[in-house]
Amino acid sequence: MLALPASLQRLIRELSRLPSIGERSATRLAYHLLNSDPDQALELSSSITSALENVQECAQCYFFCERGPDNNAIAGSSVGAGSLCSVCGDLGRDGGVLCVVEKPADVVAIERVGEFSGKYHVLHGLWSPLRGITPEKLRFRELMSRIESAQPRVSEVILALSSTVEGDATAMYIARALSSLGVNSSRLAQGLPKGGELEYADEFTLSRAFSGRNTL
Amino acid sequence: MLALPASLQRLIRELSRLPSIGERSATRLAYHLLNSDPDQALELSSSITSALENVQECAQCYFFCERGPDNNAIAGSSVGAGSLCSVCGDLGRDGGVLCVVEKPADVVAIERVGEFSGKYHVLHGLWSPLRGITPEKLRFRELMSRIESAQPRVSEVILALSSTVEGDATAMYIARALSSLGVNSSRLAQGLPKGGELEYADEFTLSRAFSGRNTL
Repeated sequence: MLALPASLQRLIRELSRLPSIGERSATRLAYHLLNSDPDQALELSSSITSALENVQECAQCYFFCERGPDNNAIAGSSVGAGSLCSVCGDLGRDGGVLCVVEKPADVVAIERVGEFSGKYHVLHGLWSPLRGITPEKLRFRELMSRIESAQPRVSEVILALSSTVEGDATAMYIARALSSLGVNSSRLAQGLPKGGELEYADEFTLSRAFSGRNTL
Repeated sequence: MLALPASLQRLIRELSRLPSIGERSATRLAYHLLNSDPDQALELSSSITSALENVQECAQCYFFCERGPDNNAIAGSSVGAGSLCSVCGDLGRDGGVLCVVEKPADVVAIERVGEFSGKYHVLHGLWSPLRGITPEKLRFRELMSRIESAQPRVSEVILALSSTVEGDATAMYIARALSSLGVNSSRLAQGLPKGGELEYADEFTLSRAFSGRNTL
């Protein structure tokens, strides 16, 4: 009977805990790490620990930022101690418009488009009663106190959340809370994706595309 | 302009050097490592270094084995100092039949079938003049000296190599060298894969399936 070395089995087990990596892929990755240049594997190992040590959440928007000396002074921020990300630390961005997203990857996606010049707020999740994720487990309270204390005032909050049941519920929840503060909120448009053929659009998307039609 | 923290960029870069992981997947994995339980990420990091430290090549067949005290005495092996893998250390396996494979993963695949009771020899590559991989860069010389000094004699060598140009060339090369030692070699059968429809088989496969037909 073939027995893989215990430390190889452990490596395969740890790799297979990563999202979208099954046991077969994990095994292939483990073999690759052992067969390739050991320096490359050591680099990967140390880059994980280094990222854990050096990356933290931005004290204002909860996106990723480098752990370092407080740089709030630069941005004239009203939040407590902590490092700011490159967007929050950028004096050229409009703090009066907030874009609320589910996760850090969403910030990267929106920045890639390069058209939004306001600031972000990362919730780190969506409201999901079924999975036991309540607003208290999100950065929801922080969003509210950030908006309440913002100078200058926040004029618009764009809820850039996924078009899913959980995204819808979270957007509704936040919009209601914001209206009690007298702050307007909007959601991303829903409709046909670019290149999407009408024939293959589902009823919901088509219905939204109709109701949201624009005059030419 | 959005700038990801340097240590996060480094983590993404290192992850994207893994096979079949592009920049997008690497980014998603990096976010996962930062967002999930830190202990899990630390476990992954330390499992990489631990595998590098504790896994080595078997002194006899070059499969993986745990670094440890020499256990050659157990197997009565004639090779030099070094640890043996679980197959080479298994006295119940027939050392008279050697199965030559390209890489460690092939050993695992064959052991999964559970029908081969001989021992292995891992070449760690295939002969590929185009990619500059000559027999000297493979465990070819080790194979020859292992066969020459084997007690009892090796009666058959099964060349379980891929059915590719490189696999074919390597098999031819080894078979010729073995015949000069008076050792018989064989190759895995080529033909229709299980479940493969004749209609969709390529000409080469079909030709091999015909020439290798078995009487019923």
